[in-house]
Amino acid sequence: MFLPKLFTDAALTLGTLPGIGPKAAERLVFYILDQPEEEVRKLAEVLVKAKDAIRFCRRCGNFAEADLCEVCQDTSRDAGTVCVVEEIRDLAAIEKTGAFHGLYHVLHGHIDPIGRIGPAELQLDHLVERMVQGNVREVIIATNPNFNGDITAMYLAKLLGTPGIRTTRIATGIPKGSDLEFADVFTLTQALEKRTDVSG
Amino acid sequence: MFLPKLFTDAALTLGTLPGIGPKAAERLVFYILDQPEEEVRKLAEVLVKAKDAIRFCRRCGNFAEADLCEVCQDTSRDAGTVCVVEEIRDLAAIEKTGAFHGLYHVLHGHIDPIGRIGPAELQLDHLVERMVQGNVREVIIATNPNFNGDITAMYLAKLLGTPGIRTTRIATGIPKGSDLEFADVFTLTQALEKRTDVSG
Repeated sequence: MFLPKLFTDAALTLGTLPGIGPKAAERLVFYILDQPEEEVRKLAEVLVKAKDAIRFCRRCGNFAEADLCEVCQDTSRDAGTVCVVEEIRDLAAIEKTGAFHGLYHVLHGHIDPIGRIGPAELQLDHLVERMVQGNVREVIIATNPNFNGDITAMYLAKLLGTPGIRTTRIATGIPKGSDLEFADVFTLTQALEKRTDVSG
Repeated sequence: MFLPKLFTDAALTLGTLPGIGPKAAERLVFYILDQPEEEVRKLAEVLVKAKDAIRFCRRCGNFAEADLCEVCQDTSRDAGTVCVVEEIRDLAAIEKTGAFHGLYHVLHGHIDPIGRIGPAELQLDHLVERMVQGNVREVIIATNPNFNGDITAMYLAKLLGTPGIRTTRIATGIPKGSDLEFADVFTLTQALEKRTDVSG
């Protein structure tokens, strides 16, 4: 090799990260070697520190530095509405809309009959406990609208169906701003089935 | 914010790397937090170690872990041919062809009249020294075929023009495998001017 072994090591390691191919990894190492030493040290430290200090929120399963996450700590949020998502990145996507002001519950997975992942592998005890404690008015199931997400949603609807507590699922349909002609058949079928009245 | 500050810190820092936008940075942090602690530590260490241990080859300016780089240490290479490049990534590109078996000299830059970068800012002393020592038969100037690279090449041709030493520049023309119709006018003009005889 014409480059030092440590160069190749660094490029190979960066190449294991998602979305970073061998060429991008090499370019990153070139860039990093061009940076002042303290910048590289800062980059390394911020990753280790994040990994060390970030854990799961005791209540909802979101990332947290403290016992409770930022969402659960926020007393201005509506504790009566709980949105159930598969992963924290789903929570992040919903938070970015700014349209939801309740709390969350992160399952950290989904039921997957083919991959043999059952309800026992999901973070469910805590969710049921929150329901039993009695201040939840509505559970919004926001699992992905795909095979595993649908099965998980069906299971949750049964598990959480309690008189007095509304159980809903987020709507599926044609994405806003997109063209009908490019929608796949499943989405379009769903959009037709779940049509809503608009007549004044 | 709905995510811990350390998460955002890590995403912002990764977002400063070339080719990594805010979305990709966030995805990387999600991935990193999902990895075992020792993997994250390994990633951080490999970067710091590379930055700490890699310096420039005393002779040619390539990256090196020792006093001399892997290329200069390789005694099977032809020390009589020296290829001059602007950056180490250019050296890497040439090495990948497997078509060059001589040694290199990395300028770590180019002359840039507009950006007021003159020959004094390039690593030239050592190149001249190598020429004077007398075992160089040919210098191949492989600066980029653009404005600054052309000026640098002209300067080098004058500086290094010594009787008995051949000075060449890598060919410009239509890239192999491409279509004439898509070549830009400058490339096509060059390709016409530098046409070569093919008649048997």
